Amino acid sequence: MSTAEALKIPDTALSPVDRLHALVAADMTATDRAIHDRLGSAVSLIPDLAKHLIDSGGKRLRPLLTLAAARMCGYGGDRHVRLAAAVEFIHTATLLHDDVVDASELRRGKLAANLVWGNKPSILVGDFLFSRAFQLMVETGKMDVLNILAGASAIIAEGEVLQLKSANNLKTSEEDYLRVIEAKTATLFSASAESGALLAGAPAGQIAGLKAYGYNLGIAFQLVDDALDYSGRAAQMGKSVGDDFREAKVTLPVILAFSRADDEARIFWARTIETGPQHEVDLKRAIAYVEETGAIADTRDMARRYVDAARDALAPLPKGEIRDSLLQVAEFSLGRAS
Amino acid sequence: MSTAEALKIPDTALSPVDRLHALVAADMTATDRAIHDRLGSAVSLIPDLAKHLIDSGGKRLRPLLTLAAARMCGYGGDRHVRLAAAVEFIHTATLLHDDVVDASELRRGKLAANLVWGNKPSILVGDFLFSRAFQLMVETGKMDVLNILAGASAIIAEGEVLQLKSANNLKTSEEDYLRVIEAKTATLFSASAESGALLAGAPAGQIAGLKAYGYNLGIAFQLVDDALDYSGRAAQMGKSVGDDFREAKVTLPVILAFSRADDEARIFWARTIETGPQHEVDLKRAIAYVEETGAIADTRDMARRYVDAARDALAPLPKGEIRDSLLQVAEFSLGRAS
Repeated sequence: MSTAEALKIPDTALSPVDRLHALVAADMTATDRAIHDRLGSAVSLIPDLAKHLIDSGGKRLRPLLTLAAARMCGYGGDRHVRLAAAVEFIHTATLLHDDVVDASELRRGKLAANLVWGNKPSILVGDFLFSRAFQLMVETGKMDVLNILAGASAIIAEGEVLQLKSANNLKTSEEDYLRVIEAKTATLFSASAESGALLAGAPAGQIAGLKAYGYNLGIAFQLVDDALDYSGRAAQMGKSVGDDFREAKVTLPVILAFSRADDEARIFWARTIETGPQHEVDLKRAIAYVEETGAIADTRDMARRYVDAARDALAPLPKGEIRDSLLQVAEFSLGRAS
Repeated sequence: MSTAEALKIPDTALSPVDRLHALVAADMTATDRAIHDRLGSAVSLIPDLAKHLIDSGGKRLRPLLTLAAARMCGYGGDRHVRLAAAVEFIHTATLLHDDVVDASELRRGKLAANLVWGNKPSILVGDFLFSRAFQLMVETGKMDVLNILAGASAIIAEGEVLQLKSANNLKTSEEDYLRVIEAKTATLFSASAESGALLAGAPAGQIAGLKAYGYNLGIAFQLVDDALDYSGRAAQMGKSVGDDFREAKVTLPVILAFSRADDEARIFWARTIETGPQHEVDLKRAIAYVEETGAIADTRDMARRYVDAARDALAPLPKGEIRDSLLQVAEFSLGRAS
């Protein structure tokens, strides 16, 4: 019986991500406990700063993938909880460093940690969480798990460096863009799912299936996120839009819109993305351009292809509630953008 | 036959650190090769930035401790080379992040990477090197080695956060100061030596001996460094002095001098360390105060006690050239300050 049933909440009231949470509810509670236990430090600034971000309502998607993968592959132990906490620590560390690098002002609707405490503690607490992640992984006792996540962390950092080069650069190719989102998003989604299966001692075909599911889901999520940032409807629903535009990030909607732009639009993009200045009214025009040129529709179409690949990748996995739920999570990732 | 003999260089011409290098010369060459091989990335900014620091004439003290510890404990394999490279990567990553946090202008006599490339790449390349370090450690196949260095990395980050709190703060206690240098310097010295012995499968007493040697040597090194920063003689020898003073770091020489200061000197320290402004002529007066109050002499006396402890810690280790050399390195750490 899932927690959703236990709480008498009709399944229809839950989003697919909530349903997946409900299927591993006890594991996720244990993971949250491990996360908070292992944030501890005699230096109180560390848990204060880390909790600010960790308790800010993130969806815990990556540890959710780890827990679901381990359980779906029949894992009966309890070390997947530490692995899931490690995955969330790596993610949190990269967010802290990202927000310093991007000089972000908001994260999950709250003031970013770098604005509350400054850049210095954000850098150092990121380093602390990264180290703690490896301590937690050591406790799983599985060297191949460490190998996957150390490799993923290196690729994430490479992707972030690559992204610096594409900022303010309208010459960024679709291929460069895909390399960046592969590194900064798909790699950790993929490693989260793969490492859960590995810890469970799953057969190679299942491990490869979950790795591919995580990878394709990660790309789809990022494509949808990047489309939403230019969505007029998201703005109407009270979601924040225009962050990427204001930071002059060259995402797929911009790459496609720019490649299809007339002279006037090209001058607009060059000013707003490459040279500045950018004015508040520019966002509305940017949204109009990406919609008119079909850039948003094409970004969503591409996301759809990755969702299809994510679904196909689950074929070797055991049928059941968790697999059904993972399939729905993939579909849902598109729904966010509709 | 040591390289020093092979090259017909009389031993007396070499510093103790150079002699230790000579005793593990082939291992150190292999370590340098591993360091450069593993810096590789399709994102060329990563090796460019990392090499700027890694090839800037650092003494490779930490990997030297790892190699010496492994060999002294009879290690006959080749995985200590990857462990030594990992240790240097962790050290380099912390330097890159330190220089961003301290807004450093120079590192090892060259422009700091943050000034050449900016803060963003320095943060991200630090993350990359840290991840690569864990990949290298995975390749050693020894979980306890990973455990020691993951723990050390967490403590280093904690120490850096603690240090932020003592900046500009003359109320910093001697105890707080020791906690900071223990975390930011002694922990990695200690882990470097201990992990080499562990990899070699040394008996527990030898592992503990090398761990304690590294710890005490690390504290002594940092105490001497902090004394040298206020040394009139170092200035005469062309060494850079006054960096800590200009950054308003509260090191032991300042803590001791301030605790012994008369009213006029207290006003001087409060202005130069806590409130500003600081003028160029202030360094000369600061040096005079720390020397007159005996703060430098007492810092050196404390370093001497840690050197004695480092020497005692080597008692359980096998007699031989490497042990002799490690004893001389400890003595030499004091000589730098005389």
